[in-house]
Order: sequence, then C-alpha cells, then structure tokens
Amino acid sequence: MADHGVPVLRWAELSEGPKLVLLDQTRLPAEEVELACEDVPALVAAIRDLSVRGAPLLGVAGGYGVALAAARGHDVAEAADRLASARPTAVNLAAGVRRVESAYRAAVDEGAATERSAAVALAEARALHEEDAEASTCMAQLGRDLLGELLPEGRLRLLTHCNTGILVSGGRGTAFAVISAVHSAGELRRLWVDETRPLLQGARLTAYEATREGMAYSVLADSAAGSLFAAGEVDAVLIGADRIAADGSVANKVGSYPLAVLARHHGVPFVVVAPVTTVDAATERGADIVVEQRPAEEVTQISSPYQPGRGSARGAGVQMAPVGAEAYNPAFDVTPPELVTAIVTERGVISPVTRETVAGLCSPSRTRTSRSGNGMMNA
Amino acid sequence: MADHGVPVLRWAELSEGPKLVLLDQTRLPAEEVELACEDVPALVAAIRDLSVRGAPLLGVAGGYGVALAAARGHDVAEAADRLASARPTAVNLAAGVRRVESAYRAAVDEGAATERSAAVALAEARALHEEDAEASTCMAQLGRDLLGELLPEGRLRLLTHCNTGILVSGGRGTAFAVISAVHSAGELRRLWVDETRPLLQGARLTAYEATREGMAYSVLADSAAGSLFAAGEVDAVLIGADRIAADGSVANKVGSYPLAVLARHHGVPFVVVAPVTTVDAATERGADIVVEQRPAEEVTQISSPYQPGRGSARGAGVQMAPVGAEAYNPAFDVTPPELVTAIVTERGVISPVTRETVAGLCSPSRTRTSRSGNGMMNA
Repeated sequence: MADHGVPVLRWAELSEGPKLVLLDQTRLPAEEVELACEDVPALVAAIRDLSVRGAPLLGVAGGYGVALAAARGHDVAEAADRLASARPTAVNLAAGVRRVESAYRAAVDEGAATERSAAVALAEARALHEEDAEASTCMAQLGRDLLGELLPEGRLRLLTHCNTGILVSGGRGTAFAVISAVHSAGELRRLWVDETRPLLQGARLTAYEATREGMAYSVLADSAAGSLFAAGEVDAVLIGADRIAADGSVANKVGSYPLAVLARHHGVPFVVVAPVTTVDAATERGADIVVEQRPAEEVTQISSPYQPGRGSARGAGVQMAPVGAEAYNPAFDVTPPELVTAIVTERGVISPVTRETVAGLCSPSRTRTSRSGNGMMNA
Repeated sequence: MADHGVPVLRWAELSEGPKLVLLDQTRLPAEEVELACEDVPALVAAIRDLSVRGAPLLGVAGGYGVALAAARGHDVAEAADRLASARPTAVNLAAGVRRVESAYRAAVDEGAATERSAAVALAEARALHEEDAEASTCMAQLGRDLLGELLPEGRLRLLTHCNTGILVSGGRGTAFAVISAVHSAGELRRLWVDETRPLLQGARLTAYEATREGMAYSVLADSAAGSLFAAGEVDAVLIGADRIAADGSVANKVGSYPLAVLARHHGVPFVVVAPVTTVDAATERGADIVVEQRPAEEVTQISSPYQPGRGSARGAGVQMAPVGAEAYNPAFDVTPPELVTAIVTERGVISPVTRETVAGLCSPSRTRTSRSGNGMMNA
C-alpha cells in the first residue's frame, strides 16, 4: 500500500507517560491533525465528538483505552464502564473494551503486579488491533480475487457508498480495503465515490482515503449513480455492511439498496465486504431489522464540516428546507440476499447468498478457510 | 387551490410607471420578498441571479420584459436581444421574448401608435401567461384522472423529484400541478420530496410550494427513496421533463432515472408530466440527448442558501470533499420509454410510451383533445 499518511490511531510511549493518539476525523478532509488522549475521559470525549468513529476502529480504540487506564494506574473497571457506554449502540466498542478488561482482570486475579497487568492489557489491545488489520487484509485479498474472477478484463471502475476504509478500521477496512488492493495491483481505472447524503461520509471521508492512496476518483451526488450505470461506467459495486441477517439480508448506510437495484437492472456485480462478526444469527431475516430514524435536521439543514481558522470544530446547521419541514431520514436500508452477488468475509466468500451459505461460513465452530482456487466457495 | 401566497410573477401598473414584480426565488424558503423590475436591465439581472427561474416561467417573464420595454418607450429590439440571451440554454425564454416582440413589431408595422403597440405587446405577454396557466390546469386534471384510474383506492403517497410547481411556471406547473390537484381533491396522504442534490431544489423549493399549499410532506435524501419503495410507501412517482425525445425517452433532473428503475422493480407507476412543447421531434432517441456536465463545485462544495440578516444573497461554497477532488456531475439523466408508465401533456395522456404514441399526440397538426372517459388514450 502506498499510504504514508498520518496514522489513524497509534499508541505512543512518551516520557510523560503513554497516550493514545488519534487522527482527528472531525477536521477531515480540511486538516490532518492528531489528537493525543492522556486518559479515558479524553478518549470518551473524542469518541462522543466523533474524532474517532467507525465500528471496528471504535472497538480497537476502546481496547487501548482500557490499556491506557491500566498503564496510568487508574480505576480500570470504572474506565471500562465509561468507555463501553460512550456510544451506546456501538457494539464493537463495548466488545473491545470488555475483551481487554477481561485480560487485565485475569492477570490481576492471577496475582500479577500492576505494571505486569497493564502490560497484559496493552498486549490484548494490540492483539485486537492486529486481528482487525489481519481480517482487513484477508478480505482485501479475497475480494480482489473475486473481482478478478468476475471481471477478468481488469482496469475496473468501482462504485462505493459511505466510508469503509482506514478511518473505520484497525486495518485497511472492508469494501475500501478491496478497492485499495485493486488499486495496488494497478487494476483500478476509477473509483466512483457516492457523496452519501445526508452526512456526506463519501465526499468527506472516502474521498480523503482515496486521495491518501493516490487513486483516480470522482465524487458524485448519490442519485447520479444511475447515469453511470446507464452509461456502462460501473464494473462493480462494493459496499460494507452494518449488520447481516441470517438469511443474508444486508443492512447498510441508506442508499445501498437503490444501488443494488440499479446493479441488478444493469447486470453489474453487487459485492458486500464485511467481517463475519457482522452476521447476526439472532436476526432471522431482513424484515426483522429495525431501521433507526435519525433527526430531521440532518436533511432539512446542512452542517458545515470543520473549516480551518473558523474556531469551532464544526459549523452550525444551515437551514435548507422551510422551517418546520418534516423529514424521512432512515439511517440505513436493507438489501435482500437475492440482489447481493457475494459477501466477502475474512473467512471466505459467500456466493450465492442464502440462509444456508451464510450459516455455513459464519457458524462459530467453523475454522478459518480460504477460497478455493477455482470458482467461488459456496461455504 | 388553497394558495394565497405572494404571487410568483405579476405585472403592476403604478403611478411611476409599469413594473414586473417577481417573487425573489434566491431568498426562498427563508423569506418571501418581491423584487420589482422597472426596466429590462433589472429583469436581465434577476434572470441571471436566478431570482426568476424555471423554463416556462422564464418564457413568461421574458415576454413581459419586452412589454415593459415597449411601455417604457425603450428600444424594444435591443431589449429583446438582451433578454433572449440572458440565459443562453433557456429555449422557452427566447421563445417567449420573440413571440411578444413579433406581436409588437406587427403592430408597429401596421402603423399603430407607440402606446397602442405597447398595449399589444402586453396583451401578447398576458396571453402567453394565460396559455401557460391553462396548460397547467389541463395537465393537472388529466394527471389527476390518470392517477384515479391507476390507483382507484385514493389517499395517495406520491414521490417527486426536483421542482415543478408555481416557481417554474406561469400557472401551477407540471408534476406539482397534478399533485396539487390530488391534494385539492383531498386524496393526497403524503408527498415525498426528494431533496434533489446537488442544488437541493426539492428541499428548498418544492418543500416551499408544498408548505404554501398546506400539504403533508416529508423531505428525504434522494437515496432514501429506495427505503420508501421497499416499505410500500410510494403509490406513484410524478416528475417533470426537460426534454422528451421522439422515441419517448425522458431527460429530466439527475436522479429521475434511478427512481424509474426503483418504480419498475416495485411495480409502482412512473408518470411524467410535461407540455407538448417539451417533445423534441428532432431528437430521435434518448442516446442522442447530450448530457451537460455541470461544475464540480456543486458536488465538492455546498452553497448556503440565502439567510436573513447575513447580508449577501447567497453564502459562499463550503468545501466538503478534499480540495482538488474531481466530480461527476451530470445535470440530468435519461429514462427510456419502457420505464415510463405515462406522459401527461395538456393535450392528453400518452400510454404506453412509444415512438408512435408520442408522434400521435405531439404532431403539430394535431388539435387539442382530452382523454376519453374510459381507459387511457393511446394517441
């Protein structure tokens, strides 16, 4: 990978003590500024302010947060509780926090000294970080291989939605990791970046990631994707997933489903890239996924991003619609399995996507496998 | 119609002379402020600033502009040339200007006094205005009847894109005129208003029109329409058209085509409402329509609308994407005829949409007809 930009998250051992140093995402894409968290309250504030965001990355950050509390000699149980509840709906955050806390607690229970227990916590946080990065690497390779099979002519024009790269992951991300691998192989002709209304994660953050990697890319209004399909300018769609139901239905950022319908209408592969932890076996089918409605102001107003020299981290919302206008603002939509060409996980590729193939690959007992060389794995 | 708001355009005979008074659209939806044009340079400035906009309304405004020059005793030929070229691609503008200029010129050539010739010009502008309003009324009624046939259960949830009402028309508009008629009949359950990126004509202007008429409406990010279709919340899509090719392909604001694909996927009627003048017989098929690419800044930046108390008419663009990001920003897209359920014109309803039915209704020799009572007219 040709990316030598500012690290998104790093542990720093300094003379004044350890810190967790974050790339402040609220300032992107205008400025690359690091934010050093010396303790858990500072990290909780960074999480709440969205200076650090994205499900897997939050898990990694939370894990390091526990290690930070341990290294600083603070109350680890209290720190873990504060971190785990910093963003209530972020399952990965709590999972990362509890994992590192458990490792720390086990060391303490075994009678390890404070310093030794803190080292155990840090090692666990690093392990979590590395596992996340490794999963990205596996997905990237499997996804690139899949595209090579589906589209052997190469020189791909890929369309993506929302933000799925280094800014949301301990590694190189999900869908964006695949795109990055295609780019590294010299096979990316152009990345089409949906701006991703209402919060513009595509225009702001995916475009930033693409710039860091030196990709040829274009930002577009989400509804301009139709014109690209009609013009034959899209070879494949790659997106991430917030949750995958047991039947293979994919919940992801609103705007994913229209792309799936357009892709089917035009015979273009629609590929979802997500770690197996995204599969929620307890959710039977897509219709069981409750879609969160977000505040109307996200649609009726536009919030300026951070602007250098303006003082505040983010501008106030500017009213676009008439005052009092109602809005329909679902956070995500659900794409049924029959519109999904494949789901790429770190364990292998699911295709076709059915209740059986999803269960086959994602059951807890299954050990890691890689895709076979010829054809897709129907795991 | 329950609309008693500020008129969008009106001719005013004042003691100090005649004026063309416009509702300043650059201040919507924040403020309803009228802008009085005393002469053609003022009107040209208003057209260039987008204080007045929308193809049919520009034609009407241009016509009145010629009448204004005549009434003020200015050089009518020069005024007409300046008006006709105020927005070069606006065909309706030049057509309206030339029509009123011709009427004025004919009166002059017949030896009429200056005052009499000016009165002829004003009468011609008023006639153009009335014809436009009458066409709206016909489309509204035919469209409402069509929806009654397609969806006899009533209580409709209609989805629209861009801006097609009083702000773009000498009358009540095209698609929005139909929606307005449904609302007046008590049959509108909800209007779904696509915000219409990148310029947000839906969130700013259609929402304003819906507010004026007291409709129940919700604004949504364009790509959230997919969720509405999936939830069975859309009974029909109604849009306008910028141009219709001889084969029935419909060029309209970018984002229309994805709605057509979604509507087809979900078995929902997709209805285009446009006067017969929109049909361009010289354009053989959709592929012959050249799609204008608009400036990248419309996507990579966000321009604030007018805000009261901030001084300038519009805010500067706020950078969203990384500086230097490329953008794909087509002004409109093309929907093939097979995805269009019907085209509603002031002369009748075209359905199914084929080269033959389009030619049948829109040929110049055809006199005005109305739809027959039973079933759709296959004109």
